[in-house]
Amino acid sequence: MSLLVVGSLAIDTIETPFGRVENVLGGSSTYISIAASYFIKPIRLVGVVGSDFSKEYINILEDREIDLEGMQVIPGGKTFRWGGRYHYDLNVRDTLYTDLNVFQHFNPVIPKSYKKTTYVCLGNIDPVLQHRVLEQIEKPRLVVGDTMNFWIKGKNAELRKTLKLLDVLILNESEAREITDEPNLIKAGKAVRELGPRIVVIKKGEHGALLFTPSTIFSAPAFPLENIYDPTGAGDTFAGGFIGWIAKTNDISDANLKRAVIYGSTMASFCVEKFSLDRFKNLTILEIHDRFHSFRELSHFEEDFLDNGK
Amino acid sequence: MSLLVVGSLAIDTIETPFGRVENVLGGSSTYISIAASYFIKPIRLVGVVGSDFSKEYINILEDREIDLEGMQVIPGGKTFRWGGRYHYDLNVRDTLYTDLNVFQHFNPVIPKSYKKTTYVCLGNIDPVLQHRVLEQIEKPRLVVGDTMNFWIKGKNAELRKTLKLLDVLILNESEAREITDEPNLIKAGKAVRELGPRIVVIKKGEHGALLFTPSTIFSAPAFPLENIYDPTGAGDTFAGGFIGWIAKTNDISDANLKRAVIYGSTMASFCVEKFSLDRFKNLTILEIHDRFHSFRELSHFEEDFLDNGK
Repeated sequence: MSLLVVGSLAIDTIETPFGRVENVLGGSSTYISIAASYFIKPIRLVGVVGSDFSKEYINILEDREIDLEGMQVIPGGKTFRWGGRYHYDLNVRDTLYTDLNVFQHFNPVIPKSYKKTTYVCLGNIDPVLQHRVLEQIEKPRLVVGDTMNFWIKGKNAELRKTLKLLDVLILNESEAREITDEPNLIKAGKAVRELGPRIVVIKKGEHGALLFTPSTIFSAPAFPLENIYDPTGAGDTFAGGFIGWIAKTNDISDANLKRAVIYGSTMASFCVEKFSLDRFKNLTILEIHDRFHSFRELSHFEEDFLDNGK
Repeated sequence: MSLLVVGSLAIDTIETPFGRVENVLGGSSTYISIAASYFIKPIRLVGVVGSDFSKEYINILEDREIDLEGMQVIPGGKTFRWGGRYHYDLNVRDTLYTDLNVFQHFNPVIPKSYKKTTYVCLGNIDPVLQHRVLEQIEKPRLVVGDTMNFWIKGKNAELRKTLKLLDVLILNESEAREITDEPNLIKAGKAVRELGPRIVVIKKGEHGALLFTPSTIFSAPAFPLENIYDPTGAGDTFAGGFIGWIAKTNDISDANLKRAVIYGSTMASFCVEKFSLDRFKNLTILEIHDRFHSFRELSHFEEDFLDNGK
């Protein structure tokens, strides 16, 4: 199995009430790829950077054995830079700056060696570009896409066109309500499925996630974290763990999609425990297993019925 | 086993975007008792009504075999009346009127025959009255209490005193944050335990519920309801299902507390499917079993690990 990841590569500066990091590796394709790298190889990354994208950043990706043949380097260009400040309530974030730089004119070109890829994960980029990626590759087994309110508002028609090409859409609670104009989250999840993707995952942050397939609904808990240091990249990391597990097992049954949601949640729970990529770029298999198992402990119960004769 | 329920008895008028009902039986002790009545007998209700509390209301309670010896009837008095209007977003509610009437001077007197009761559920009433109830009864096996932001703000010192006497506190998400001044819900749940109750349940509405015991945290999903007609009484119904299951099984192990949370969620999910008591005053055991089992389907997954050799 192989996985193609297309998305942003960025240099982030992040402030939270618990600290600050400057000029660290970020971007959706970074978080997706690193999370997925614990599950599957090869991972083929398509993105764009400038000549300021230092060897230090490349090393982080190469250490996780991510294939960078599809990473475009624009000579003399500057990499996409993002700065954000989180409040004490980490659900509230101010964007300090968004310098798109070379990302503004990103045109994803899929190398010939990538065209046959079993699994595809499209990070949160312009739906027009997501569409263009899919035109360049042979029919993969499963395409997972992410989006955000910016595209729901700004490129609604293009997004709806792209949604028809996705097998799985991962989005958050407010985005699901916005794209369907439906306050009830169960109705919203079902309505998103009618827009194209036969599988929908709604991320609810501290409340976990909901999976909608043609035949089931699954409710995953959130890991009970007392200290969240930096939420940056949690959503992308979820997507990476989710698609990574599916690509590894090559199994899209409901039972395995549920596990994929838990692996996504597992990876996201590590991501937010430290700044940037610090916690999860060097995880052990044992740490991942333990956390996955904790999710089971957290949500499982044994049946016992009213007419049990007690 | 026996269960004592103390709380309000009310006559409600409820409007939602889906309809309106006038002068229907309501109140916390009504919802708690009826929910618990599917699990345990006898249920002993202590509350107060006026002479306008018609035979029709009494029949509903007696049909569920609820013992009304402790229901005080004030001759010439008027029963507590509450009117509320829910918005399209059912989380938003306007209180149209709150006529406390005889409830304003409610002094819970526990009949002699009730003093030995194994389980006690204190509905959301003044913490001073909750305290007074507990002074009148012999040490029960478990005391469950409910509260609300009104008492957290208005009678904080009295509430803190009463909390020390509770084994279980059931409260909602915003109340847990408010009483502990802690935005992180996991920290808040643990902090509530430090105020007295060794078991805490945080209700999160459409996001399910969290159980905190001395040794575990359990995350229960919400039943995926597409149509909620009337949220009135859902919290009390949760408490009734929760304590009802515990009283029936006489088992306060972690494994059984988890099931109690699911039975509470099960009963609450029925409560909101129709107006007032309409859906859940005539449930069958089979309906309850089916819904309980659905909660299991909704949240369970089987483990499979990264080093599974696939």
